[in-house]
Amino acid sequence: MDIEQANTTAVTRMMEARPILKGVAVAREAIPGMKPNLFLHAGPPMTWERMSGPMRGAMIGAMMLEGLAKNEAEAVALAEKGAVEFAPNHEHGTVGPMAGVTSPSMKVYIVENVTHGNKAYCNFNEGYGKVLRMGAYSDEVIKKLKWINSDFASIIGEAIAASGEGLDVRALIAEALHMGDESHNRNKAGSLLYLKWLAPLVAKAAKDSGVESEVLKFVGDNALSVLNPVMAACKAMADAGHNVEGSTLVSTMARNGTDFGLRVSGLGDRWFTAPAEVPKGLWFPGFTEADANPDIGDSTITETVGIGGFAMATAPAIVSFVGSTPKEAVNATLEMYEITAAEHKTFTIPALDFRGTPTGIDIRKVIEKGILPRVNTGIASKNAGVGQVGAGLVRPPMAIFEEALVAFAEKYEL
Amino acid sequence: MDIEQANTTAVTRMMEARPILKGVAVAREAIPGMKPNLFLHAGPPMTWERMSGPMRGAMIGAMMLEGLAKNEAEAVALAEKGAVEFAPNHEHGTVGPMAGVTSPSMKVYIVENVTHGNKAYCNFNEGYGKVLRMGAYSDEVIKKLKWINSDFASIIGEAIAASGEGLDVRALIAEALHMGDESHNRNKAGSLLYLKWLAPLVAKAAKDSGVESEVLKFVGDNALSVLNPVMAACKAMADAGHNVEGSTLVSTMARNGTDFGLRVSGLGDRWFTAPAEVPKGLWFPGFTEADANPDIGDSTITETVGIGGFAMATAPAIVSFVGSTPKEAVNATLEMYEITAAEHKTFTIPALDFRGTPTGIDIRKVIEKGILPRVNTGIASKNAGVGQVGAGLVRPPMAIFEEALVAFAEKYEL
Repeated sequence: MDIEQANTTAVTRMMEARPILKGVAVAREAIPGMKPNLFLHAGPPMTWERMSGPMRGAMIGAMMLEGLAKNEAEAVALAEKGAVEFAPNHEHGTVGPMAGVTSPSMKVYIVENVTHGNKAYCNFNEGYGKVLRMGAYSDEVIKKLKWINSDFASIIGEAIAASGEGLDVRALIAEALHMGDESHNRNKAGSLLYLKWLAPLVAKAAKDSGVESEVLKFVGDNALSVLNPVMAACKAMADAGHNVEGSTLVSTMARNGTDFGLRVSGLGDRWFTAPAEVPKGLWFPGFTEADANPDIGDSTITETVGIGGFAMATAPAIVSFVGSTPKEAVNATLEMYEITAAEHKTFTIPALDFRGTPTGIDIRKVIEKGILPRVNTGIASKNAGVGQVGAGLVRPPMAIFEEALVAFAEKYEL
Repeated sequence: MDIEQANTTAVTRMMEARPILKGVAVAREAIPGMKPNLFLHAGPPMTWERMSGPMRGAMIGAMMLEGLAKNEAEAVALAEKGAVEFAPNHEHGTVGPMAGVTSPSMKVYIVENVTHGNKAYCNFNEGYGKVLRMGAYSDEVIKKLKWINSDFASIIGEAIAASGEGLDVRALIAEALHMGDESHNRNKAGSLLYLKWLAPLVAKAAKDSGVESEVLKFVGDNALSVLNPVMAACKAMADAGHNVEGSTLVSTMARNGTDFGLRVSGLGDRWFTAPAEVPKGLWFPGFTEADANPDIGDSTITETVGIGGFAMATAPAIVSFVGSTPKEAVNATLEMYEITAAEHKTFTIPALDFRGTPTGIDIRKVIEKGILPRVNTGIASKNAGVGQVGAGLVRPPMAIFEEALVAFAEKYEL
């Protein structure tokens, strides 16, 4: 067996995947295996008992959004008696930021990798402040979610449909990387490129100018607007490199707020998990590290395909948000070349003479060099119902790479 | 006389100026001293006889737009018999990119420096291809100008009015500098920030959704959309630092395609001029240096207030457009600290640990160090009617700094 060859195949498939934003649909109609009482979540598999505060909070809110529960107590009762099921987004072609809860009636983006034909899904970004993905579920949160799920998603869906060909999200990311985004925690430029594409389509719809104006304002003011289509695009790229026989490349990194989960291309759908770390970062006013939940969210799909923490060198302005220095940002990217299989063909870094971003994490190199992947992330309160408390940097636990390498040796009898 | 103190006053006034985009008006109604047969232009004063090809071309087109001439021959005849007057934009509180021709019926942006109360004006950006500012004047050019002057400018003007408070252009520039723009030749991010501000206002107008959609598409697709409001903002900032008794800081750098012109804060409205250089750069397909006109345009107002070529370090992606390397881009900015009086308080460069951009060119330092200001620029064909042939880098002639320093010594009896 030729591991190098297998890794080249896997990383080339990731890089050649061309994810196009094709439309908007209701989760239960679009996501494979979705059903009325199923609640998808970020990271590896999780039970109600072991669920972290922010994920419990998001589940409570989602049950209220679905009309299954009127309040927290009813939602908790449903969860405790097993009346609802939980499953990882990743096992349904889906991803979600932070808690990442995807419930049956939520509208989702549909992204298709037109090179290889696989699809991926992600819900809509709710903006800042008290939001479901950070574990908040007050009336205000649910009200905003309902607007996003109705007026907002309808207009965005119609705009995408009216475009005819959809939006090339890989090209958008490539451009945003030249405009100071690393496309995980900093999506300022990407969200404006998304707005640029949407604005003429939305204005032309001319059904209700008040709503259209509000939609364009929400897309423009939310510098994370494009994060969710970007994450779906990254999922579509990562999945293209998954299940390559003999490959030691990481095809999934995802956290559920309790555990950090890893999957490896040549090891199929098996999860390797260990307790997630608490990120180091900058805290919103009134919060400290003591308020922080351990690492949470599927957004590490960005680092999995060579952007986010791996593209820090192109986003020096982000350091004022995650707590670092421009020099460290460059070093973060340089370090990631040590543990990756390729330099991306499409995602390049002007400040490093247009070098491709480090892409395709090789678990052998992680162990050999003792270097863990770098991740940029938002930080949720450890308590349900609170929301975001900061943003920062984190690494996965080494144990999951060790376990995966042992499993690889066993499977392939090395 | 304390030159240091005078320079601190001048550069502080430039940095404390807060230019707000306040509205749109017809040039003849808004610009001080504008009259029916007056055609303003970029750079220092110029006669028809000595006018370069692109400026002649732009004058011909402007006379056709005004309805004074039906074709090139009629326009040339008017110019030759002295039936129209020419004057520098700069002497009327105005600036314009490239040929910078501002004629009486053109719509202009009005920017007000709310700190000191002075106003500045700039016409609308026409986008790419065959455009008046590059000296083209075909039917297609005039048709597009008419659309910009009617539908486009009306909707933008209404949107600005509807905003109530206008747009803080200094804040926009500061944000764009963190998104890979240097805000002279690269205005990708700034133009999207402008779109983000405009889009909800335009969509809400709901008069003709087809036109509104077209307007948003034009703003979004033209990565130079915001250049003209930015130039007016820079003019408002530079003028705030002009006429400070005893100051050796540059308050105007501008080129008319024949001469490069310089004005100094402590030397009033006197121009120092010498032949403009031909920029070095990258050529559009089918063109070479032999097609290039010497340096042209008022857009050096950006470098005058500390952005553009002075902020190259924050815009590494620009090198693929102007012909340079990311390393040289950083060096360009570092070099400019040698000849400037201050580091900008609002315009900062993340990659240089958020250092303020080099601001306030001191003619003493230019002479003492033998370092000329760096300028990013578009390059026009030397022939009227052709248009843009490339983009690149250029420096002003040393002679004008020498003359200015001599004049300074004479005036102040040093």
